[in-house]
Amino acid sequence: MKLYGYWRSSSSWRVRIGLAIKEIDYTYVPIHLVDDGGQQHSEEYRAMNPMRQVPLLQWEEDGQVHRLAQSMAILEYLEEAHPSPSFLAESQARRGRIRQLAELVNSGIQPLQNLAVIQKLKAESDIDARRWCADWIRRGLLAYEQSVADEDGPFSVGDRPTMADACLIPQLYNARRFDVELAELKRLLAIEEACFDHRAFQVSHPDEQPDAAASR
Amino acid sequence: MKLYGYWRSSSSWRVRIGLAIKEIDYTYVPIHLVDDGGQQHSEEYRAMNPMRQVPLLQWEEDGQVHRLAQSMAILEYLEEAHPSPSFLAESQARRGRIRQLAELVNSGIQPLQNLAVIQKLKAESDIDARRWCADWIRRGLLAYEQSVADEDGPFSVGDRPTMADACLIPQLYNARRFDVELAELKRLLAIEEACFDHRAFQVSHPDEQPDAAASR
Repeated sequence: MKLYGYWRSSSSWRVRIGLAIKEIDYTYVPIHLVDDGGQQHSEEYRAMNPMRQVPLLQWEEDGQVHRLAQSMAILEYLEEAHPSPSFLAESQARRGRIRQLAELVNSGIQPLQNLAVIQKLKAESDIDARRWCADWIRRGLLAYEQSVADEDGPFSVGDRPTMADACLIPQLYNARRFDVELAELKRLLAIEEACFDHRAFQVSHPDEQPDAAASR
Repeated sequence: MKLYGYWRSSSSWRVRIGLAIKEIDYTYVPIHLVDDGGQQHSEEYRAMNPMRQVPLLQWEEDGQVHRLAQSMAILEYLEEAHPSPSFLAESQARRGRIRQLAELVNSGIQPLQNLAVIQKLKAESDIDARRWCADWIRRGLLAYEQSVADEDGPFSVGDRPTMADACLIPQLYNARRFDVELAELKRLLAIEEACFDHRAFQVSHPDEQPDAAASR
């Protein structure tokens, strides 16, 4: 398996967490989102993913090359192809809650603070792009905190990491990049601590990726 | 089952399509996103969904009330709870492609053109909000068109409607609201035609909802 990603892309990090939970070996192919005007815009990469985004997973099966973009689609595929250990849950109701939380981040926060949005805001408006991002992140994380108020923990849903945590932890990392105040989000900080006790969240961290050093 | 929704919300429409494909009866509870300053902001609704968004599905099971927000989480739940007829596919590779296309719309287009974003742009910037929405919709739909270039049709993936179509058709409706030029997106227009031959897309259409008439 090959994962096209970027060390600081939160969607790439989600997939690295998923691969690490399932202990799947893969080759990491860095796509630098800023250098060369953004390598995701190259003709070669666009042919693989017309959305010009990372992550992108590639694998061979029955002599065919398969490619899959969109972190949530990739996570669902990994869960189906490698069911154990699961990052969902047994019961349909819990699976629903896990996906709801994952989507709260995936469609409710991340798209509003990604690089393409920041670049467009800076090019076409007088709005403070950092403030814009911080506002959406804070609003979403407050809703996440409320949504897990009745959960027992230590993770977002239950006693092992799920797809929801794979979305939450990278989003908390982004929150700090945008100076979002997190102190009152006590459940989220406790979930974060539980996750970072887990190897999958450590080895997948942006700072541990081969393209991190070269970018700083 | 109860579906809290809004006639013109594209995410609500996705779930109505899913329920109609599976021929599940439900009670529709309109949440007006504009009237009364937006009914999704009411204390009562926020307690059910802290993200203050529609759709929200509610059902009873084993004497317990269950609630699920986020259209993709709801669609996955419906597929698991009522597997037939499926709006996914048998093979993992095809399921992956369907989810990738659904997410292209769900996280790649819709969040950037929804009501909350338009309201924030209008309140805090001098940017043309309609143009902003149209740009993101066009960029995303062009990528969708490229992504299905090798599919045989008549639907996005294969010969029956899937989760991908449940996301695409409401997004095309939004595209027209924002005057996005669609003529060159020939595969998407053909998929749309195939979908509207299907009862599930007809009965779920915004204009057919009880809250449509009252809003005009």
